[in-house]
Amino acid sequence: MSMPKRTSLLPDWLVHVDGAGLRDDVTAGLTIAAMLVPQAMAYAMLAGLPPVIGLYASTLPLVAYALLGSSRHLAVGPVAMISLLVFAACSKFARPGSEDYVATVLLLTLLTGVLQVAAGVLRLGFLVNFFSHAVISGFTSAAAIVIALSQMKHLLGVKLGNERNVFKLLAQIARHVHETNAVTLLLGAVSITGLYILKKRYPRLPSAILFVVCGTLLTYVGLSRLGVATVGDVPRGLPAFSVPTIDLASIRRLLPTALVIFFVGYMESISVAKYVAARLSYEVNPNRELLGLGAANVVSSLFSGYPVTGGFSRTAVMYQTGARTQRAAIVAAAAILLTLLALTPLFYHLPNAVLAAVIVVAVAGLVDFQEAVHLFRMKRADGLTFLLTFVGTLAIGIDQGLLMGLIFSLGLFIWRSSHPHTAELGYVASEGVFRNLRRYPQAKTYPGVLILRPDASLYFANMKFLEDHLAREMAARSDTKWVLIDLSGVNDIDAVAVDTLERLMEAYEHSGIRFAYASMKGPVRDVIDRAGWPAKYGLRVTYPSIQRALDGLGVSSAPGLMGSTLDT
Amino acid sequence: MSMPKRTSLLPDWLVHVDGAGLRDDVTAGLTIAAMLVPQAMAYAMLAGLPPVIGLYASTLPLVAYALLGSSRHLAVGPVAMISLLVFAACSKFARPGSEDYVATVLLLTLLTGVLQVAAGVLRLGFLVNFFSHAVISGFTSAAAIVIALSQMKHLLGVKLGNERNVFKLLAQIARHVHETNAVTLLLGAVSITGLYILKKRYPRLPSAILFVVCGTLLTYVGLSRLGVATVGDVPRGLPAFSVPTIDLASIRRLLPTALVIFFVGYMESISVAKYVAARLSYEVNPNRELLGLGAANVVSSLFSGYPVTGGFSRTAVMYQTGARTQRAAIVAAAAILLTLLALTPLFYHLPNAVLAAVIVVAVAGLVDFQEAVHLFRMKRADGLTFLLTFVGTLAIGIDQGLLMGLIFSLGLFIWRSSHPHTAELGYVASEGVFRNLRRYPQAKTYPGVLILRPDASLYFANMKFLEDHLAREMAARSDTKWVLIDLSGVNDIDAVAVDTLERLMEAYEHSGIRFAYASMKGPVRDVIDRAGWPAKYGLRVTYPSIQRALDGLGVSSAPGLMGSTLDT
Repeated sequence: MSMPKRTSLLPDWLVHVDGAGLRDDVTAGLTIAAMLVPQAMAYAMLAGLPPVIGLYASTLPLVAYALLGSSRHLAVGPVAMISLLVFAACSKFARPGSEDYVATVLLLTLLTGVLQVAAGVLRLGFLVNFFSHAVISGFTSAAAIVIALSQMKHLLGVKLGNERNVFKLLAQIARHVHETNAVTLLLGAVSITGLYILKKRYPRLPSAILFVVCGTLLTYVGLSRLGVATVGDVPRGLPAFSVPTIDLASIRRLLPTALVIFFVGYMESISVAKYVAARLSYEVNPNRELLGLGAANVVSSLFSGYPVTGGFSRTAVMYQTGARTQRAAIVAAAAILLTLLALTPLFYHLPNAVLAAVIVVAVAGLVDFQEAVHLFRMKRADGLTFLLTFVGTLAIGIDQGLLMGLIFSLGLFIWRSSHPHTAELGYVASEGVFRNLRRYPQAKTYPGVLILRPDASLYFANMKFLEDHLAREMAARSDTKWVLIDLSGVNDIDAVAVDTLERLMEAYEHSGIRFAYASMKGPVRDVIDRAGWPAKYGLRVTYPSIQRALDGLGVSSAPGLMGSTLDT
Repeated sequence: MSMPKRTSLLPDWLVHVDGAGLRDDVTAGLTIAAMLVPQAMAYAMLAGLPPVIGLYASTLPLVAYALLGSSRHLAVGPVAMISLLVFAACSKFARPGSEDYVATVLLLTLLTGVLQVAAGVLRLGFLVNFFSHAVISGFTSAAAIVIALSQMKHLLGVKLGNERNVFKLLAQIARHVHETNAVTLLLGAVSITGLYILKKRYPRLPSAILFVVCGTLLTYVGLSRLGVATVGDVPRGLPAFSVPTIDLASIRRLLPTALVIFFVGYMESISVAKYVAARLSYEVNPNRELLGLGAANVVSSLFSGYPVTGGFSRTAVMYQTGARTQRAAIVAAAAILLTLLALTPLFYHLPNAVLAAVIVVAVAGLVDFQEAVHLFRMKRADGLTFLLTFVGTLAIGIDQGLLMGLIFSLGLFIWRSSHPHTAELGYVASEGVFRNLRRYPQAKTYPGVLILRPDASLYFANMKFLEDHLAREMAARSDTKWVLIDLSGVNDIDAVAVDTLERLMEAYEHSGIRFAYASMKGPVRDVIDRAGWPAKYGLRVTYPSIQRALDGLGVSSAPGLMGSTLDT
């Protein structure tokens, strides 16, 4: 399965063509196209756009990614989460469905693309690490629920406003539920059940197209007279080229959302790309992924599309149907272009309820409470982050919820790193090492020596904590002559920390208490050397281990420890 | 010098009064007042406000802090840095000097105060750790230069617009320098020189008041006829009570600046408060400091003031003149109230050039290039952060510069923690410990065993890096049977990291390579236990030390190491 290394600027699959590989890619590409047609239309509607925009976004952007991206299996196109974000942001500035709304979306798409290309060129792929896993899962689970609820209007066949808040959505549904069109509900329920079963049984089949065809036939032969709403006119023809209207005020307004779509889109895309790449042992390059997705979005904004990214379910299918290269995506794009040229009149009778069913089944798998339980069990703080993001996204709003989660996880991180775990150590004979006295109360201590192990890199933000900790420890004891700091957990140190330690040593020296350091690592040693410590303080700052330090300070060595005889 | 512990809700100095202490506090308070009068007027003008607003901000806000804050020596009032920030933000929304401008400033003051009180009540004092030392020093140095340049119009006696950008400031100065009023320049130059010398020689003296008196007398007897500009009318009377006009649009507009003033003000204040408290061995409480400063700002916004904080120079003087409690601040506030009631007509002839000299001398000490050199020497990344913030603040704008510094330092942090230092270890006999092979090429290695020490907490953001690192190491060798991971530098681990390690172990197991772990710390052990590792993988995940691990794995022990005999 492994591919030759890419040697030219052009993707390998464009240069070398072999028959079997081509056949596999065509099969996979047609499968993807069959999935894309209903999904793209449904997601575009979710984003408050005419369905044809979804189809436009499923053509040239795929080609742009294929030429620049680094994943062989990523299926780019409209996805549910991004569509919801587009709707949440743009419906604040323009009425969904209006021309103004489409113009706003096009500018947002361009912004997202430009940000991604810039980040790719500047090699800022690592910045997404800022989004913690707990925030992303909490957000995804809540957004999936909001998306499913937003489809209730199509599934019940009632008219509802474009609400973004889950409470308002529920209230509206409750007010209008008595207007439900029974035939529409039945059609939706059957589609959801059928799609769900087929997805579980035959994950590689583009089963949605089956329901699209059946649903269309049913309304064509009569259901539309029973009040089943359909997609209606979908214009025929290729996407037109246009440059979004660029004005500074709109850019400033849309920038926060563009950043969110950038990050969320990239996260979804890189996770699934990495997952598939790991299975087939090839590499995806974060910065080239950004470049590919950015180019796809720029192209999308120029050809009447809307923000796209690598989708989870379609990428999985692309992999499972045996696609070998991005040729499959090109095939899919070509198929959708043909659809746009010839088949759009057929969508006139396509029931909205079937498209809603496609969305609901697609997002149902994203609600992941097991993950929440797992996070809570492993680490309460991660679980809390999930919960806060989840509740915030559901109850307040999807962008605010994500922001709340991010701020909370950042705050948590700052809190943790300014209140590091610090252990007082004693010698545990049975293990032959020095351990936290709290956990090993039987550990041997040494009269006159306080052995401390701060479990954090030392920097400006946590030195106050360390200082206070030391003061408390010293207040509780009177006979201390030596403070021995074990630096095995100190992976890094900054200039403020070095200055603070010097000041502390000077202050304690007045009370006859001296400091020694053991187990210093290379990167810390470099800083300490530049600060001139070895010259100023001598050997006592560079003991290789606690044992050696105790020997060097003339304190009785640990029983059974041969430290001092090691190098004789 | 040590004080009894505070036992009631009221500050101790309000309950217990002793004669000597009271005398010291009165002396210090009057000194502070003499410093405050010129500084407050000068800083208010720097903020684009009438000078009397500075005096208003030096009355009741001081009392509010005195009652709620925890520092005994913090001298609250207008400061240069905050005044510049107020000007930079509010001049975007209203013309400096206009009524609208004053209203904007009052709302900003209220916002800042409310944010600080809220942060104090919610105990969010630790959040300021977000501001790295390098960012703050770079910002302070650049802002001091901008402030000094902004005073050139008063020192040259020419009319210049209200520019915030240093290039535009310089261009304006160059265009107008030929209009310089020689007498004004001479007065300013003499004041700067004199103030500078007196400040060095007699740091406790409120020397500015001397120049204020002399300058006023000189213009009164004739300099004003030579074109020396003076302060003019300063209204007599107490600050009036009013509630700022609160509208949501303005709040949204001012919120970012309020946050910046909140942080910068708090940083300046807490640093000097802690510095003095450490000298006299008492404690300042971060959250009570926020509460005190917040209350001062809320009071300031209700009584025609503008944002205040604990100032560096005045606090130093308060400490040096022997103040014992915040009674000194109350005395200062009372003296300023008396000044407002009786002395303001005297300021009519006070030359602007003298006030400008007061500002220039006050901020000159804040430009700290030595700190930049120190940071560069100790750690290049810190130096770069300083430089970027400094250049950004000077060349682009003071708020943008601060933001750039913050984003850069955050990005740097994320980069560092997702690319952790990882060492391959070998046994260094002379030190009796395991060390990085890169630094100790002579260290002994063990055939079939790769010993890795990742120097970072393991979490979702750096597992990909670790995985790649491991893959590279394994590709370079073929005989490896064991990967022994030394966790001494791993202070924390998250759920994603645990899952990734499990997946890695499973994948490598297929190639006959197994994993073992040594030197796991308590907090990491807790997570591992919850993940069920000891049951799943047995003893090999919990070796207390590398030596024990090598013994346990049946690999020949380090020469001379008595590891395996320790507990027999």
